[in-house]
Amino acid sequence: MPDHTLLETFPAPSDQPFVIEHVSEEFTSVCPKTGHPDFGEVTLRYEPKPASDGGVCVELKSLKLYYQSFRNEGIFYEAVTNTIRDHLQNCMNAQWLQVVTDWKGRGGIRSRITATVGDVPAEYRGW
Amino acid sequence: MPDHTLLETFPAPSDQPFVIEHVSEEFTSVCPKTGHPDFGEVTLRYEPKPASDGGVCVELKSLKLYYQSFRNEGIFYEAVTNTIRDHLQNCMNAQWLQVVTDWKGRGGIRSRITATVGDVPAEYRGW
Amino acid sequence: MPDHTLLETFPAPSDQPFVIEHVSEEFTSVCPKTGHPDFGEVTLRYEPKPASDGGVCVELKSLKLYYQSFRNEGIFYEAVTNTIRDHLQNCMNAQWLQVVTDWKGRGGIRSRITATVGDVPAEYRGW
Amino acid sequence: MPDHTLLETFPAPSDQPFVIEHVSEEFTSVCPKTGHPDFGEVTLRYEPKPASDGGVCVELKSLKLYYQSFRNEGIFYEAVTNTIRDHLQNCMNAQWLQVVTDWKGRGGIRSRITATVGDVPAEYRGW
Amino acid sequence: MPDHTLLETFPAPSDQPFVIEHVSEEFTSVCPKTGHPDFGEVTLRYEPKPASDGGVCVELKSLKLYYQSFRNEGIFYEAVTNTIRDHLQNCMNAQWLQVVTDWKGRGGIRSRITATVGDVPAEYRGW
Amino acid sequence: MPDHTLLETFPAPSDQPFVIEHVSEEFTSVCPKTGHPDFGEVTLRYEPKPASDGGVCVELKSLKLYYQSFRNEGIFYEAVTNTIRDHLQNCMNAQWLQVVTDWKGRGGIRSRITATVGDVPAEYRGW
Amino acid sequence: MPDHTLLETFPAPSDQPFVIEHVSEEFTSVCPKTGHPDFGEVTLRYEPKPASDGGVCVELKSLKLYYQSFRNEGIFYEAVTNTIRDHLQNCMNAQWLQVVTDWKGRGGIRSRITATVGDVPAEYRGW
Amino acid sequence: MPDHTLLETFPAPSDQPFVIEHVSEEFTSVCPKTGHPDFGEVTLRYEPKPASDGGVCVELKSLKLYYQSFRNEGIFYEAVTNTIRDHLQNCMNAQWLQVVTDWKGRGGIRSRITATVGDVPAEYRGW
Amino acid sequence: MPDHTLLETFPAPSDQPFVIEHVSEEFTSVCPKTGHPDFGEVTLRYEPKPASDGGVCVELKSLKLYYQSFRNEGIFYEAVTNTIRDHLQNCMNAQWLQVVTDWKGRGGIRSRITATVGDVPAEYRGW
Amino acid sequence: MPDHTLLETFPAPSDQPFVIEHVSEEFTSVCPKTGHPDFGEVTLRYEPKPASDGGVCVELKSLKLYYQSFRNEGIFYEAVTNTIRDHLQNCMNAQWLQVVTDWKGRGGIRSRITATVGDVPAEYRGW
Repeated sequence: MPDHTLLETFPAPSDQPFVIEHVSEEFTSVCPKTGHPDFGEVTLRYEPKPASDGGVCVELKSLKLYYQSFRNEGIFYEAVTNTIRDHLQNCMNAQWLQVVTDWKGRGGIRSRITATVGDVPAEYRGW
Repeated sequence: MPDHTLLETFPAPSDQPFVIEHVSEEFTSVCPKTGHPDFGEVTLRYEPKPASDGGVCVELKSLKLYYQSFRNEGIFYEAVTNTIRDHLQNCMNAQWLQVVTDWKGRGGIRSRITATVGDVPAEYRGW
Repeated sequence: MPDHTLLETFPAPSDQPFVIEHVSEEFTSVCPKTGHPDFGEVTLRYEPKPASDGGVCVELKSLKLYYQSFRNEGIFYEAVTNTIRDHLQNCMNAQWLQVVTDWKGRGGIRSRITATVGDVPAEYRGW
Repeated sequence: MPDHTLLETFPAPSDQPFVIEHVSEEFTSVCPKTGHPDFGEVTLRYEPKPASDGGVCVELKSLKLYYQSFRNEGIFYEAVTNTIRDHLQNCMNAQWLQVVTDWKGRGGIRSRITATVGDVPAEYRGW
Repeated sequence: MPDHTLLETFPAPSDQPFVIEHVSEEFTSVCPKTGHPDFGEVTLRYEPKPASDGGVCVELKSLKLYYQSFRNEGIFYEAVTNTIRDHLQNCMNAQWLQVVTDWKGRGGIRSRITATVGDVPAEYRGW
Repeated sequence: MPDHTLLETFPAPSDQPFVIEHVSEEFTSVCPKTGHPDFGEVTLRYEPKPASDGGVCVELKSLKLYYQSFRNEGIFYEAVTNTIRDHLQNCMNAQWLQVVTDWKGRGGIRSRITATVGDVPAEYRGW
Repeated sequence: MPDHTLLETFPAPSDQPFVIEHVSEEFTSVCPKTGHPDFGEVTLRYEPKPASDGGVCVELKSLKLYYQSFRNEGIFYEAVTNTIRDHLQNCMNAQWLQVVTDWKGRGGIRSRITATVGDVPAEYRGW
Repeated sequence: MPDHTLLETFPAPSDQPFVIEHVSEEFTSVCPKTGHPDFGEVTLRYEPKPASDGGVCVELKSLKLYYQSFRNEGIFYEAVTNTIRDHLQNCMNAQWLQVVTDWKGRGGIRSRITATVGDVPAEYRGW
Repeated sequence: MPDHTLLETFPAPSDQPFVIEHVSEEFTSVCPKTGHPDFGEVTLRYEPKPASDGGVCVELKSLKLYYQSFRNEGIFYEAVTNTIRDHLQNCMNAQWLQVVTDWKGRGGIRSRITATVGDVPAEYRGW
Repeated sequence: MPDHTLLETFPAPSDQPFVIEHVSEEFTSVCPKTGHPDFGEVTLRYEPKPASDGGVCVELKSLKLYYQSFRNEGIFYEAVTNTIRDHLQNCMNAQWLQVVTDWKGRGGIRSRITATVGDVPAEYRGW
């Protein structure tokens, strides 16, 4: 079951703006309609708030365990993407945050879902 | 026969804006002029209305079955593209929606048709 | 001899704007100067007028036969390109229309000719 | 229904040995287990018997119509491949003949089946 | 738990020799040492015995379900590969059979395991 | 009409064995069944006999004109390939000679025909 | 010697604006300093004036002969490029015209020279 | 231990603006959470202040030794990136400066962190 | 310090022959001459003895830790390669075993070292 | 020793603006810190002043000899780049001028330095 309590953060190491991208090539959940496993890639991009403003970063190993908590969950692509966006933003309160999921073909159809919060810079949009 | 009643939706999982892309590499219909089969790829991109505004997403398996309902239909490329755009927009009422069809060569000619509704963001235009 | 009467149209299937691209990789005509055959690729892009405004699309097989009517015609590249643009626009009266011809090498020189009518959107210019 | 009576032949144009390859990128049949369409590519390679020995070639348009006769047939990949091999060899009695089918992913699994008759030269094996 | 009873077969459709390849890009199991999920690709190649000799083929959907039965199993790469080889050979008794597993990086190490039974033709060895 | 009298030769410039390859990307003829034009690429490879043994080479411009003489001929792919092989071997009497024709898709099927005479070295076979 | 009298023109076939590109991959001249041959590619792009305004196009075979007239001329890259630009503009008086020369390495240095006249559209600049 | 005293500078060789990029493909540090080594690539881009304004450049060998001083340090990706940015900016006081770190996969997740100071020109953003 | 006691094994899961390949992209040691770090990729391939003959496989995490034990060791490329071959063969007594190390450039020179024991099959030689 | 007196110029052949690019793939100098040779590629781009305004171009062979004069010079990358920019601008007084140097790896670090004078058009920036 998606478990946001697995997510851990640490204080942003700077007041200067910086951007973080984590690409997980090994995401799997279960289709709620057919019961078959789904496989995808999850890309997370965000800019933390400044350190002096309480900015935090998500710790990488906790992110991996959080993603693994979807393994046996029956959940649509769209809900996966929005859930990850909301869980991560709730625990980080980032300046902006973007989640892109790319799903392998199902019935000859492959999919990409993009969910954001805040003002994503132009150079990261439409990926 | 293209059967829009096959399309099922589920409520958008968020009030935040997000974008969905489904690429079907296995579309086939029949040329109304020659009776020979046509083969193509259908790309659908859209942004659902916010959940609180009644926004919905198309369910993936129902989309596959809907596409399959064109299999033995005699229909031009242009009509395929506009029909899909209209059927999907009628059942989703999306913020914006784009349908691109790419067709394998016929008589040495390959074709691409692009139909849209609403204001497609610049990063998705002209693909 | 280029024969525009071969071109057939059918009513545009929608009032919504949409864009059509047909790429023919198998065009041939004859050089009026040397009598040797020329080989090229013809790309046609256009947006039909809305259906309610009498908009039409060119039928694909008739387009193929029309292109084949250049097979034994002695005609310059530039005239091929402008002739196709004019014949197609005369029978479709499109919102905008673009014809690009790419010609294989002749005497070590390969050529591309681009002819348009109306306001071609920026994403299709300069191809 | 696969209909071998659609296949037409013409006499081999030579007593000299020669090799023919036809690649059809637009093959579709139906899965007998799920009822969903399958999509694949069929490669046929063969060497006809010499003309003076009654050698024949399959006519291309008849081959296309023969392949189209599988369109709504429920049939396994393996049976498609062996059926095509047998039908073609029955009507051509080639020196050797090879059929390779490549199938798009189903449930995350993509497949290739290779069926032969006679002594395929080393340069065509294992493709 | 890997469950070989999920595997179903059907009679080989021919007495002629032919070769079958199924590539599954979506295999996952669990590392018995760390408890973390492993992700890999499984390639199966085999030649069934002739139909008249009782030859059979594995049915594709049953193969998918069989692979899915490893999803929550703690098992080493080497055991996965040999288990699949043994289960499939037990139910098919093929002329020859080859299983290749390719695993994504773990701790910066990516792995490939190849297990065979019978006499694999030279053109398939060392892949 | 294919006109072998267009072919001209000149004496091989050496007694040492050497190999010649001419690739023509601009071959066209007409399908005898449908009347539509076919487009292909013709590759010729051969080793002339030694000069002291009366060996000759085909002159390049004459080869171009010879190929152009197929332009409006209704003729199957297989006959094109064997005709070119025979015409060229008749006028050159080469040690060995290979003609490969690659044809653009017709009805979703693309084709390659290979015809040879004499003992083609292993490195040129199967192309 | 570069001989502009070799250039021939014909009337532009239309009043509609169109763009012409000729790429010559086989240009050669002589280095005036070392006497060694230089090899390069010459790209010409231009928009003729409208037909009703006396617009003309350069005839392709005459362009080839004109380029060949540089063969034994000792001339710098920069002068080649500007000379071609001036000769062509003098005989065509185009709306705009661009000449790009790409030169193979000399002493480990490869070069590109770009010369223009008139207002080259943004999509052709910087090539 | 990251040791900024290893960094040496030399006076900028010009008052004219110029841009410097150093890409180090061989960066390694240690994960503070697991104790396992991390491997990455570090890209540094900056524009020094003008020479007359006291502008300096970092000396390349000292940069290499500085990067090596992270070898056995337990430190997060984000802190590596911000530390390098701060150390380098402290010793160079550049017009602008950008540090991008690309990290190999850990637990199936690969990461990129981008930290900047000053006004990075548009052509270097979002890399 | 290279520490072979870190290596753990488990019994080979089969009496059938099979081949194992582990590629580690993140190997680092120290040059004994200059004290600077070296970076390379280590490929291990082997066939274990049959299970009934006491065959064993190296456990993957222990292999990772073993490789990490070279991190601060001053050792030549050649010694790294032979040491790994000897340590692994001592603890596995494989049928055959091959170690290939690929080293990033040092002073503009990149290196590959290959060490083997036993009879490596032809398809793995020379890599 | 870098010797700007080796540079020779000739009058710009036109008053029309044009752009010149010379890419030298074979530049070498010596690291002043280690005494080891450095290898790089030098790209020069500039627009000469109009001929009537005294504009000149650098002669290619003299440029080659000038680059060769750095061969045994101990000099930093940054100084190479700025020195070339200054020497060339001093002798040409170009409208604008850009020098980009790309250096092969040193200690695992590869570098690019970009120095300009005047207003470089947007299409050449950031290369």
